[in-house]
Formats: sequence, structure tokens, C-alpha cells
Amino acid sequence: MYAIKFKNNHLFYLDQTQLPLKEVYKRLGGLGDGYRAIQELRVRGAPLIGVFAAYCIALASRSFSSQKEKFLEQFKKATRYLQGSRPTAVNLFWALERLKQVAMENQKMSVSVIKKKLLREARAIHRQDIELCKKMAEIGARFVKRGDRILVHCNTGFLATSGEGTALAAIYKAHRIHKNIKVYVDETRPLLQGARLTSWELMKRKVPCTLICDNMAAYLMKKKEIDKVFVGADRIAASGDAANKIGTYSIAVLARYHKIPFYVVAPFSSFDLRLKNGDAIPIEKRSQDEVRKVRGKVPIAPANVSAWNPAFDVTPGYLISAIITDKGIITAPYRENIERLLRVK
Amino acid sequence: MYAIKFKNNHLFYLDQTQLPLKEVYKRLGGLGDGYRAIQELRVRGAPLIGVFAAYCIALASRSFSSQKEKFLEQFKKATRYLQGSRPTAVNLFWALERLKQVAMENQKMSVSVIKKKLLREARAIHRQDIELCKKMAEIGARFVKRGDRILVHCNTGFLATSGEGTALAAIYKAHRIHKNIKVYVDETRPLLQGARLTSWELMKRKVPCTLICDNMAAYLMKKKEIDKVFVGADRIAASGDAANKIGTYSIAVLARYHKIPFYVVAPFSSFDLRLKNGDAIPIEKRSQDEVRKVRGKVPIAPANVSAWNPAFDVTPGYLISAIITDKGIITAPYRENIERLLRVK
Repeated sequence: MYAIKFKNNHLFYLDQTQLPLKEVYKRLGGLGDGYRAIQELRVRGAPLIGVFAAYCIALASRSFSSQKEKFLEQFKKATRYLQGSRPTAVNLFWALERLKQVAMENQKMSVSVIKKKLLREARAIHRQDIELCKKMAEIGARFVKRGDRILVHCNTGFLATSGEGTALAAIYKAHRIHKNIKVYVDETRPLLQGARLTSWELMKRKVPCTLICDNMAAYLMKKKEIDKVFVGADRIAASGDAANKIGTYSIAVLARYHKIPFYVVAPFSSFDLRLKNGDAIPIEKRSQDEVRKVRGKVPIAPANVSAWNPAFDVTPGYLISAIITDKGIITAPYRENIERLLRVK
Repeated sequence: MYAIKFKNNHLFYLDQTQLPLKEVYKRLGGLGDGYRAIQELRVRGAPLIGVFAAYCIALASRSFSSQKEKFLEQFKKATRYLQGSRPTAVNLFWALERLKQVAMENQKMSVSVIKKKLLREARAIHRQDIELCKKMAEIGARFVKRGDRILVHCNTGFLATSGEGTALAAIYKAHRIHKNIKVYVDETRPLLQGARLTSWELMKRKVPCTLICDNMAAYLMKKKEIDKVFVGADRIAASGDAANKIGTYSIAVLARYHKIPFYVVAPFSSFDLRLKNGDAIPIEKRSQDEVRKVRGKVPIAPANVSAWNPAFDVTPGYLISAIITDKGIITAPYRENIERLLRVK
């Protein structure tokens, strides 16, 4: 079971929009196919988007010109194009930046060498992502006690990364070492990543789980049925403010009110230290039809009603108990502690 | 446009499960049809259930025995049966209680007279419900300022009552007197009464509205896009604790955190003063498939994943800014003030 796989010089990806009904793998076509796969959420999850985008560019570049100047022009155009696929998760930009650096550092080399180095970099990003997941799992699992009932939102597992996941990897690790945990899964409207993907993943990993609608979490908290919240992040500013799937901020406020620890699990590549705080994070607005319909086709509201559909919201650092990263744990004061752990590398 | 209508000695009701795609009216069949209409939410909304249940009994009783003892036995059996249709909204029990009293007070009369009196009582409950809505609208509209942006949850309009509604009636009234308001509509998973019914109603009444997923409300509050929250109630205890559609408690906590007034609008018949507090209110658990599927048939999760589906939650009185009733406004301390306004009647 994998979200993406590089094999025989091709990239294969699981079309996540068809889960949990069908497990369909597709071979990555050209750059346009990669762009649409990201935009339509066939491939999603901040870390996975980064890895996938790197492969998209590296593989597309094989068919670029063998004339250096023309090649570099096509390369730049391709990265600019792919950057437009989704605006919020910073991992996309981070991965493309790494490829750009490889191209720049090797611009004296022959085009065929540059092409090889780009693919090598994509594969390095891929391997690194798997390693980051292992570290986050290791550190994150320490925050889980025996018998914990954990609330999760959206999908942060092996479908959101090329490894075992971020927040969900910590949960898998805790489950494997017999912590006897139970997971409550927010369905995560409008695109239902919790219902469709996370509950599917948890069942594959045999972790006891219960699906709930997003609006039920507060009532569970009131009934003292939730011990902890674990979520991922798509972009974290220098202040510790974290953009994540719409609904995350809501849970953070509810967790604070009910005195429940709220943890964000994300790799160093999800931090964007150029941004002072969460207000600077661009929030993707998606089609109104995602709210007016379910699964892209089933109408649940008048066709012409106005709908609001931000894909993400921002949770201020002061609502986050700790940010669990591959490099260690970060707690408040975030600006200072993020700087200390991440900038000096 | 009406939710129910008594005409030519028959009751007609709008099948709300088919909205907003189809507007289908049905003629009430026997008692079993009425029971299923309530249980399957073809007829819903606490006040409407009360009125509808009264008609169900009154109309069913026409075919009961003309022999007194047998008639009273059938009558009691029928009310007990209908009481089992939905457990939380107290209006159902309140309306059936009124019919029982009519039967008891007139048990010396002939069966045909009792039958007539039962129907007269059902029609009186119906007329009274329309009047209660007018009063709640009048009083509730005073809480709306020009330009207010109001968040609503579930459906509390002309589909939830036999009049203009409870919370939504106040909003319609404010709109009619040109308060230039805007309404944000929570979609209200799992059964989507907000998306399917409330946005449909608001469009029929030409009130500007925007549909959101339940998990987006907090982010709107953070962006200072919500001035007030108006919700209904299915049962209010002597303490002011109010059971309402699942997700209401979540909004109440979020409103408190963001310092936004949170109003409950409900008629006197939604109060259950025998219950000391919200813990005593029975909460209906519904089928897991309502969470795992959308609109009863579209799967959005693994078919065998465990799901939790309470139809209601309880908002403690201390999170409610005011309860707006047909008899006036109630604020904290609730126990004292509810007693004063409602008990002495």
C-alpha cells in the first residue's frame, strides 16, 4: 500500500479521489497530468505534494530540449506552472526550490547530466520524506499514553506523505507498541478526507477508530471522550501559527475550552520562516460546488445558493500545545523556539 | 408554501427528505405512516412534530372503535406508539399530552364527540403554533441590528413549524423590516438540514445567505464575519440547558470564545420543567449509515467503519445569551427566570 511509487523510470500514484470505494493506481503522464492530479486532489497531503511535484518536474524535464538555454527556460516555466497548482502547502514550493537549486548549481554541466541530477534530487526528497515520517512517529508516539482516545482531522497518514505520515504516523507507532489507543476521525467536510481516507487507513492498520461528523467533536469533548488532538499542518509561520485543513482552528478552540492538549505534527519542510505570522499564509479558496455537492456530483443544496469554501484555516500558535517535528519538539514561545530549532541548520 | 396543511378532512405534508431537489406533498395515511414520517424525518422540527403528531392521533382515531372502552384503549395505544417515533423533542409529548387530556376530560361523552374534540384540539394546537411563531418573530427580531451577519444551524423556519418558524422566523421578520441582514447557514451534517432546507427557505424568502460546512463557522468568527448566532431547541430543561441539533453545542462554545451573542429561540412548549438540567434530556442515537453515507445512499466512508451518530447535543444555559420565547425573553439566572416566566401560567 503506497501513495506514490517510483518504478521502472515511471511514477505511479494512487488516485485518492476514488477512495475508499476503489483503489486505482495511475501512471504519471506529462506535466499537465501532474498539475491536475495535485489540483484535483488525486494526490494530496502537504509532504506528498512536495515529493510528487519534484518527480513531476524531474520526469517532465526528460523531454525538455537538449539545448542548454532552451532547457533552462523550459525548466523554469515548468516549475512556475506547477507552483500554481495549490497555494497553501509550502512543501510544494520547498521541493521545487530544491530542484531549482540543483539546476542552478549544475548549469555548467551538460543538459543530460542536469536531467539525471534532477531525478536524483526528486528521489532524495522522496527518501528523506520517508525518514522524516519515521522521526515524527518516534517523537510523536511519546505524547500518546496507554488508553488515549485521540481526535484527528483530515488525513495525515500514508496517503498524505510518501512514508507513514505525520500525525497519523505517531498514532500508528503508538498502536504498534500496544498503547491500546482509540481514534476518533472527523469526516472533514467538504472533501471528506477523514471519512474517505483516514478511516480507510486506520482500518488497513487495524487501529480501532470511530468516524464522526465534524460538528460532533465538541460534544465528545464535553463527555470527556477525547484525551488529545493530533493534526498535521500545510504551512507554519515563524510565530507557530499553522495553516491546516479547514476545521482545524475550530477544533483548536474547542480543545482549549475543554482543556485538551492540541498537537501539530509536521516536518521541517512545512515551516515557512519568511512569514512572520499566520495572516501572511495564502489560503486557497476552492469551488463552491465542493460545498453544494458531495463527491463532486451529489447535490445537497439548492444549485444556485452562494457557498464559501476556504480549503484551510489558520490556528494561532497560542492554541497549540506543542509542534512535533522530525527535529524535535517545539513549545511556546514559538518564535524563539522555532528559530532555535530550525533556523540554525 | 407550507410544511403541513389540513384540507378536506385530510392532512397533507411536504416530504422534507426530498428537498431541495423535489417539492413533493403527501397525504397522511394511517398511524404507521405518521410514525414513519416522523422517524424518517419527512416531517421534522420540534414544533412541527408536535402539531403533526396531534393530527396523526386525531385522524387515526376516526377509524377507532365506536365502543367507548375499546376506543380509549386504542387511543392510548396509539399515543404510546407515536411517542416512540422520536425521543428528544418534547413538543411531541406535549402535544400528545394535550390530546390525552381532551380524551380524559370528555370520557363521559360519546365516542363520536370525543373524536370531534380530538380533531378540534389538533387544529387548536396547529393555530396556536402559528401564533407562537409570530410572537417569537416579533420578539426575536428586536435582537437583530441593521447589517447583522447571523449564523444559523439546522432548520428553524417554516419547515420546522406550522408557522414561519422559531429562530428563522425572527430572521425573516428582521429581513422584512429592512434590517439588511445576511445569514450564514451551517450545512448541519449528517442529515444536512441547513444545506437542504434552510438555504432553500432563505432563498424562497429572498434573504441573502451563504452556505458553509459546519467546520467553517469558527474561522468566520475569527475573521469577525459573524455578529450573532440564532438557533432553535428541541427540549429545554429547568436550568436553561437546551438540547438542539448535533453541532449546536460546538457553535455555542465557539461563540463564547469569540464573544459573539448566542440566542436560542423556542416556544414555551419546548420547555420541559420536570427535568432539572440537560443531563436528563434523552438524546436520540440514529443509524451509523447516516454518517457513513450522504442522502441515505452515497457512501463516503468504508462501509464497515464504526460511526457515532447522536442526533442532538445539549448546550448548557451558561453558554446561552438569552432564550427568546413567545412569552418573552429569558436570561440568566435561568432556573429562577424560567420558573417566573413559564411556571406561573
